[in-house]
Amino acid sequence: MSETNVNSEVTAPRKRRRRAGSRAAGGSGGASSWSQKPFKQPTRSFASVDLASVEAVEQVHNASLKVLGEIGLKVLHDGAREIMRKAGAEVDDASMQVRFDAELIQQSIASVPAEFTLHSRNPAHHVTVGGDQLFFCLMASAPNSSCLDHGRRSGNQQDFRNFLKLGQMHNVLHGLGGYPVEPIDVHASVRHLDCVSDFLTLTDKVYCIYSLGHERVMDAIEMTRIAHGLTTEELRQRPSLFTIINTNSPLQLDIPMMQGIIDMASMNQPVVITPFTLSGAMAPVTIPGALVLQNAEALAGIAFSQMVNPGAPAMYGGFTSNVDMQSGAPAFGTPEYMQAQHIGGQLARRYNIPYRTSNVCAANTVDAQAAYESVFSLWGAINGGGHLLKHGAGWMEGGLCCSYEKFILDIDLLQMVAEFLTPMDFSDDELGLRAIRDVGPGGHFFGTAHTQERFKDAFYAPVLSDWRNYESWQEAGSPDAMQKANRVWKQRLADYSAPPMETALRSELDDFVARRKAGGGVKTDF
Amino acid sequence: MSETNVNSEVTAPRKRRRRAGSRAAGGSGGASSWSQKPFKQPTRSFASVDLASVEAVEQVHNASLKVLGEIGLKVLHDGAREIMRKAGAEVDDASMQVRFDAELIQQSIASVPAEFTLHSRNPAHHVTVGGDQLFFCLMASAPNSSCLDHGRRSGNQQDFRNFLKLGQMHNVLHGLGGYPVEPIDVHASVRHLDCVSDFLTLTDKVYCIYSLGHERVMDAIEMTRIAHGLTTEELRQRPSLFTIINTNSPLQLDIPMMQGIIDMASMNQPVVITPFTLSGAMAPVTIPGALVLQNAEALAGIAFSQMVNPGAPAMYGGFTSNVDMQSGAPAFGTPEYMQAQHIGGQLARRYNIPYRTSNVCAANTVDAQAAYESVFSLWGAINGGGHLLKHGAGWMEGGLCCSYEKFILDIDLLQMVAEFLTPMDFSDDELGLRAIRDVGPGGHFFGTAHTQERFKDAFYAPVLSDWRNYESWQEAGSPDAMQKANRVWKQRLADYSAPPMETALRSELDDFVARRKAGGGVKTDF
Repeated sequence: MSETNVNSEVTAPRKRRRRAGSRAAGGSGGASSWSQKPFKQPTRSFASVDLASVEAVEQVHNASLKVLGEIGLKVLHDGAREIMRKAGAEVDDASMQVRFDAELIQQSIASVPAEFTLHSRNPAHHVTVGGDQLFFCLMASAPNSSCLDHGRRSGNQQDFRNFLKLGQMHNVLHGLGGYPVEPIDVHASVRHLDCVSDFLTLTDKVYCIYSLGHERVMDAIEMTRIAHGLTTEELRQRPSLFTIINTNSPLQLDIPMMQGIIDMASMNQPVVITPFTLSGAMAPVTIPGALVLQNAEALAGIAFSQMVNPGAPAMYGGFTSNVDMQSGAPAFGTPEYMQAQHIGGQLARRYNIPYRTSNVCAANTVDAQAAYESVFSLWGAINGGGHLLKHGAGWMEGGLCCSYEKFILDIDLLQMVAEFLTPMDFSDDELGLRAIRDVGPGGHFFGTAHTQERFKDAFYAPVLSDWRNYESWQEAGSPDAMQKANRVWKQRLADYSAPPMETALRSELDDFVARRKAGGGVKTDF
Repeated sequence: MSETNVNSEVTAPRKRRRRAGSRAAGGSGGASSWSQKPFKQPTRSFASVDLASVEAVEQVHNASLKVLGEIGLKVLHDGAREIMRKAGAEVDDASMQVRFDAELIQQSIASVPAEFTLHSRNPAHHVTVGGDQLFFCLMASAPNSSCLDHGRRSGNQQDFRNFLKLGQMHNVLHGLGGYPVEPIDVHASVRHLDCVSDFLTLTDKVYCIYSLGHERVMDAIEMTRIAHGLTTEELRQRPSLFTIINTNSPLQLDIPMMQGIIDMASMNQPVVITPFTLSGAMAPVTIPGALVLQNAEALAGIAFSQMVNPGAPAMYGGFTSNVDMQSGAPAFGTPEYMQAQHIGGQLARRYNIPYRTSNVCAANTVDAQAAYESVFSLWGAINGGGHLLKHGAGWMEGGLCCSYEKFILDIDLLQMVAEFLTPMDFSDDELGLRAIRDVGPGGHFFGTAHTQERFKDAFYAPVLSDWRNYESWQEAGSPDAMQKANRVWKQRLADYSAPPMETALRSELDDFVARRKAGGGVKTDF
């Protein structure tokens, strides 16, 4: 069966009659012609799930305040320790240890906004962070990428750009979570210039930059200012880029991370404080214990952002998972990961701070494991009260690879989640009483006006799901979801077109990059 | 790498040191030696999710009462119409149409118990139906079965028995939902005798029988009475077997189904009223409309069970899904399916009646699609407030096939769900403050006493998940989850041993079956 045949079979609606509920002979092996809903953040219309009791959450909260008060964190950045000291923390410069009392933490975090807008250069792509709004991002920070055709390879600029294009094209992704894959073929001294320039020209969605030293962060801020056509003061009024701050668990805050908070919070740009607390490795082997550590580190980082600039947007990041105790390998999308996602959300709600979580798995190939670990992650994220979903599309191998096929699978999963969350219409017409009366006992709804008026858009048409009956599917060569995904991403990428950008802004941006590159970019020791 | 090597690699815990958070070189491609938690129903410790507003649920409720009052159902069973007439329904014998006013429905369903115990012949396997208890069942009613080695074939007794054995062996399955696969090599006149005998001898878990006429139902009840060693009156006091009643949507109740309600409810055995309302086919093309029809039919069936025997256990079954509008093929595990699962649960809670839902998919192979559709179904079931989960393990192809590999995948998924639902311990010791203090900033938790005391059972060890790093996984031949599942089910089946049964009861049961077979069983016209 040729590609064209499949297309025409799928796009031309049929009115063949058959026994209701029978498995179709023809029908769709998933939509081949692409259609998607407009860009719109899904909303969570129901209360997030409280997995743990209020008392249990208080126990985690209290224990983490004890950690901050009695043990404290090691803060490697001298300037950061100075800011903490001024704010009232107990600082020991010799050991670099900083202790915070409960009062100081609670007062500091009180100024974090519960909700804020992240601005894109395209106003249609602004996103709300917090409240009942969900914010899905492309995968970030993989050292490798892979596709079914060419296998797995080290990160490079072509794959980097391809993923940005795919990220731009899919409305269910509301932003870029960082570099989908690290383009190691671009020298580290100028890599951030190329990457942020690509963010700004290949896409018009919000993005996350890396806190890899003052110079790089300031470059990214300046490039954002230019591309958005703002003054520095205007940018300060408009959160427009964000950064992830990973603590060095346990209980350590390193220099680039602290500098990132200082630079970004000073400019009123959001920081997402995300402890990397793998239970059994960098955190206690119990999920409650790992959450105590996560909460202590997150509170310290968030409190610090407010010491730098009270009222600066910040987020509570949860990334607690478990490891394979046989080998130390991190695991994701596990029951323990879901528990941590839920209770992390309860803690973030307790502080009224927007919550970041992720769509992650440990699978090496886009098989059943990749799917169940990802859907479990999504379950935990959506019901656990997540706002920002990092690594929304592409993530494989515990983060070591961004896969083209997984990207398509994830787009499908995210679209399904968005569809599930779409409020239903319970008007009389939709309740269908008239149709039920017209059809009567033993009848069929296919032919009614009520059905005919709605059938085209009645249901979500999945990208990958193959709903043909077994015989037709077998005749078609028994394709699995990964093979379908492989075909789809190539079709999609071929359809990319760059979002418009004002010529003057583009020139100014290009000039800035050229000037910085001519100056050698950021000095490195290699 | 040989099977034995894999086993020893997985079962021998290692203490190799490596960079925390790195992907392991060795480690587990999933547990090969089987270990499972004891038989125990998981509990839902949090409130079920209210996806629709209270007003929306009332609109569905009111519309369905209108359907019952103004349109009514066609009831093909004369005796059932007579019972309905006596209870106060408006019956038209010529058209077989029966209308119920709102008052009659609400009064009738008020006597349904909110919670009941289903008794097994092994008291350790009794299950609670309702409340916060979850009850997971093996797949039922597939015409085909399949495995990776021998492909797909028509249902037969050997596969039937194999699946019962697998159902018995896995503690996360609390009961049998019916015939996992239809053994069509056993003549229909005696099939129920063999199958129920197998339920009672190959397993000691609760089970679901088919309502295929008075004689078969009474045989199953009698066989249950014998195997449980009870008098008829004692059996009437102990719900011990259940049946699924599917309405012929739209709005039709056929003779065997009504007879099933009469026979089972008279004996105080639970009936699960499950309309087969596929939106766009046998039900309106909108999910709210399909739910109106589902609710009308479910309420009519449940009300009827109470007209037969007030207080008899009954369940509200939800099976509403959508169809592929291109082909008419039923779809499962879709966003619409999840919506229906949730709102079905809200309706069941409104009536305070235990709720039945399912773990289903439309995939033809155990790929990413099979996994995501199933996990979406589980998400809807658990958060939507399901009590009985039908088709818990094995279901493929919209119900047309029971797969050995999918069975193992589903066992893994159900165990992960059960693990996620297991309450955590927030005692001081588990919060790990001492361990956090001991390890201090920048340290590692692998070696601490806190970790060493707990690491063996700290986390769920998945059956299928392959957590090796990419290189090791590739060296091992790049196995996917389905290949692993294939190896596992064969190992498992080889380990089966039959549950004990008193010799006297066994003889009496065998005698009954032999006597009924000698009499030709149930007359059929073929």
